[in-house]
Amino acid sequence: MNGARALLTTLVDNGVDVCFANPGTSEMHFVAALDEVPQMRAVLTLFEGVATGAADGYARLAGKPAAVLLHLGPGLGNGLANLHNARRAHVPMVVVVGDHATHHKKFDAPLESDIDSVAHTVSGWVRRTLHTADVAIDAAEAVTAGRAGVISTLILPADVSWGDGELLEALPTSSPSLDVDAEAVRDAAAALSSGAPTVLLVGGDATTVPGLSAAVRIAEPTGARVLCETFPTRLQRGAGVPGVERLAYFAEAAEAQLAGTEHLILAGAAAPVSFFAYPGRAGDLVPPGCEVHTLAGYSGATAALEMLAEDLASGIVAPVAQPRRPEIPSGDLTAFSAAAVIGAMLPEGAVIVDESNTAGIGLADATAGSPAHDVLTLTGGAIGYGMPAAIGAALAAPDRPVLSLQADGSAMYTLSALWTQARESLDITTVILANGAYDILKIELQRVGAADGSAPGPSARRLLDLGSPTIDFVRIAEGMGVPARRARTAEELAEALAEAFATPGPHLIEAVVPSLVSDSFKTAPVAGA
Amino acid sequence: MNGARALLTTLVDNGVDVCFANPGTSEMHFVAALDEVPQMRAVLTLFEGVATGAADGYARLAGKPAAVLLHLGPGLGNGLANLHNARRAHVPMVVVVGDHATHHKKFDAPLESDIDSVAHTVSGWVRRTLHTADVAIDAAEAVTAGRAGVISTLILPADVSWGDGELLEALPTSSPSLDVDAEAVRDAAAALSSGAPTVLLVGGDATTVPGLSAAVRIAEPTGARVLCETFPTRLQRGAGVPGVERLAYFAEAAEAQLAGTEHLILAGAAAPVSFFAYPGRAGDLVPPGCEVHTLAGYSGATAALEMLAEDLASGIVAPVAQPRRPEIPSGDLTAFSAAAVIGAMLPEGAVIVDESNTAGIGLADATAGSPAHDVLTLTGGAIGYGMPAAIGAALAAPDRPVLSLQADGSAMYTLSALWTQARESLDITTVILANGAYDILKIELQRVGAADGSAPGPSARRLLDLGSPTIDFVRIAEGMGVPARRARTAEELAEALAEAFATPGPHLIEAVVPSLVSDSFKTAPVAGA
Repeated sequence: MNGARALLTTLVDNGVDVCFANPGTSEMHFVAALDEVPQMRAVLTLFEGVATGAADGYARLAGKPAAVLLHLGPGLGNGLANLHNARRAHVPMVVVVGDHATHHKKFDAPLESDIDSVAHTVSGWVRRTLHTADVAIDAAEAVTAGRAGVISTLILPADVSWGDGELLEALPTSSPSLDVDAEAVRDAAAALSSGAPTVLLVGGDATTVPGLSAAVRIAEPTGARVLCETFPTRLQRGAGVPGVERLAYFAEAAEAQLAGTEHLILAGAAAPVSFFAYPGRAGDLVPPGCEVHTLAGYSGATAALEMLAEDLASGIVAPVAQPRRPEIPSGDLTAFSAAAVIGAMLPEGAVIVDESNTAGIGLADATAGSPAHDVLTLTGGAIGYGMPAAIGAALAAPDRPVLSLQADGSAMYTLSALWTQARESLDITTVILANGAYDILKIELQRVGAADGSAPGPSARRLLDLGSPTIDFVRIAEGMGVPARRARTAEELAEALAEAFATPGPHLIEAVVPSLVSDSFKTAPVAGA
Repeated sequence: MNGARALLTTLVDNGVDVCFANPGTSEMHFVAALDEVPQMRAVLTLFEGVATGAADGYARLAGKPAAVLLHLGPGLGNGLANLHNARRAHVPMVVVVGDHATHHKKFDAPLESDIDSVAHTVSGWVRRTLHTADVAIDAAEAVTAGRAGVISTLILPADVSWGDGELLEALPTSSPSLDVDAEAVRDAAAALSSGAPTVLLVGGDATTVPGLSAAVRIAEPTGARVLCETFPTRLQRGAGVPGVERLAYFAEAAEAQLAGTEHLILAGAAAPVSFFAYPGRAGDLVPPGCEVHTLAGYSGATAALEMLAEDLASGIVAPVAQPRRPEIPSGDLTAFSAAAVIGAMLPEGAVIVDESNTAGIGLADATAGSPAHDVLTLTGGAIGYGMPAAIGAALAAPDRPVLSLQADGSAMYTLSALWTQARESLDITTVILANGAYDILKIELQRVGAADGSAPGPSARRLLDLGSPTIDFVRIAEGMGVPARRARTAEELAEALAEAFATPGPHLIEAVVPSLVSDSFKTAPVAGA
């Protein structure tokens, strides 16, 4: 058995049975071995950032890692932004980076580069396998390491892949245990019982129903407020699910949410900090004098919250969001009316992949009482995530409709995701919220004081404008095999969504919405955005 | 003057007056300062890989660096593959990576990452500027360092950009001197005079007319053969230019070219190695027993060749390629007939950016006698280079037509380059040689022995196929504002090229050609490809 087959066998024996692949010459034995290990489903992506984003979306919904196959250092580089997002979201992933044969490294061939250094910046576990006999062992360790919520990167030289190793038994892997820190639970309980204003900030593994239920139960008798981290890895919400407010993206809005808090209890979330720094503003968003209590890290937050709920809220049933849908509005689309249409029409059991950025300003409210759904967010802030992640979500949950809400600027990063959606006939409805601008940057240009109170000049404006020429996402989608249409009114969006949800396979709707920011950039609506 | 303005002023004072930009929040002061330093031309790209590839194409033609503005670690990651290509091509570039404010780093905000480690893998010079007062000095040093043919990466924290520094005088930069190693010239002269079979392998700065002329002059009296490195940074060729054969990409073809050579003289080129390793084949392509002489490194190769020519070929005039164009063929397009149409119609003074890969198999011959032109090649082997590089070439040489020859698989990497071509109204004609497959990988799957002599299985085939669904590049280009049409016959391609060359602004032609590799993958034409 060659190394490539040993790798594939070990992966599928341990439940890693989907691989998003962008192979090159050094990965050809891996490709050939796919026909010998048919349990592995290989999905071709046409750019590495699509592969890594897809693996992220898959893991968030499947709760287990997918594999990714990348070609040498440049392939890893192309996948890096979405690996950054996955790292920030504690997503497990097994990344296989093919490399030149061990005996070829010394020649410094054109594609030679420092794969290891780049891999270490995003991975929790990195290994370069130097002998075919070690492939299965290393692959098993990669899976085990990944299950702790990190990216495992296995660098696989071509000759290790093509070499012959022994036929090994299936190698066992393990999963991390989630021990609750009883002392931290007692400390949080004391704070919650103190009567002082307390916020329970949930994140990590506590943003699905069990963790959210425990958190809102705790809030009932203690009067604590529950907030959710700004960009959760996987947030469950909607009718029948305990609803929690998310911490705002803009620092001043988050400060307002946290004002007066004397105890901040972190359950799977990090202490809140400003996404970016702004001149003269604090980066640390914990109010002065507020005491911070770490109940649990990313993993184990649900378990700790459940223990705390048992202590403080025994017998209390978690309140849940009631069914409530907006009316379908009419007339020209805006970011808010588009959100209302989406809230009105969201299908049962949907998975929303949300990279709508500023154009999604109305979504949280409009969908709060829609049927229960999952939301995957841009946890690491690196744009180009949504359309790839939708691929992985659709493969992990083939019976659920995936709604990919996408800002236009971000959509341009990983467009070829649409082709893979078409090839795999995935039930993904992409809505491009097309406002023809980097609206977030128009806002940020003011907020950082760069425009100095005056309207920005023409060179600056031109760098934030996507409208010249107008990007036609309908044509682009059709060019990649995805049926597409444009909606300029709420009625058109409703009709297009109805058609997309009713028809199998991918669809794209370009929803034309106005920019939120006036042309002079002077009236940016920031609060709560 | 704030740091951003000091940076821009220093750059334009030293001739760096084009900036390819993908800004984010941490770069807003740089963006705002563009209106205060109007000598800097800022070009928006919608993906960082487009920015870095454009800067590469610009530098290859302009002979000086462009600047690139990237957003944090993920932005650098997205630009990494084309930075790899630029590194391999010894292209000067000043890369400015915005980072979080210095006082914000400790918060580990969502977009925090290890920028420095990633930057070091591609840069010859890296600096993180920590004080506004140092910005101008560091920018000047970045330009000086870049001029030696490396990527200079300046990591610029947001507060250093927005802080106030002193108004500094224009800081001087310097260019490297190109000293010729007289001993190396004598050694090469002795080898060339020995009468033994000798190859002069030219590369580096010696692949434009002066270097090529010196090389072919030397060949006349000595009987040496001149070969050019496989993927030169900038190769001048065509009628009136000394013609040289390029070393083949496939190792066995290169071995045949070099067979029997007893002296190999390297003038700006590295000793030839196989692009990839193959089981049982040598990676070092220098024939056994052949003596290798390094005449000059990447820079200074032309100067060394000219000294050598003065010594060995005084008074000899370099022979040049004669004007010769293919006939325009007729009927269904193939890779070869497409090449003939291109050779027949190539305009005067064209710049070809060649990422046609296997589909370009007939190009070298078909264009050998076309009007003199420059060719930029995929020096580092990381695909997704061509369409971005064409942007830079068109900006560096606004009076010359740019012909971007593009394989379909590679085109999918950096598609949004087309939008920037449209925004900037650049005279670029893109020909997508669309064969619906990763042909190179079909060939390589056989060559590495992965298919084991038999036809590959369905899973492997599916990973090398781009035909399902068919990619419609006409719609994609139109979606980005680039007029486009499809050519299925030689006549249609000729007509489309004539229209594109006659009409200002960008155009795209999808030239549908059959795969070179049969469906069973068994008859790959490798020699000389």
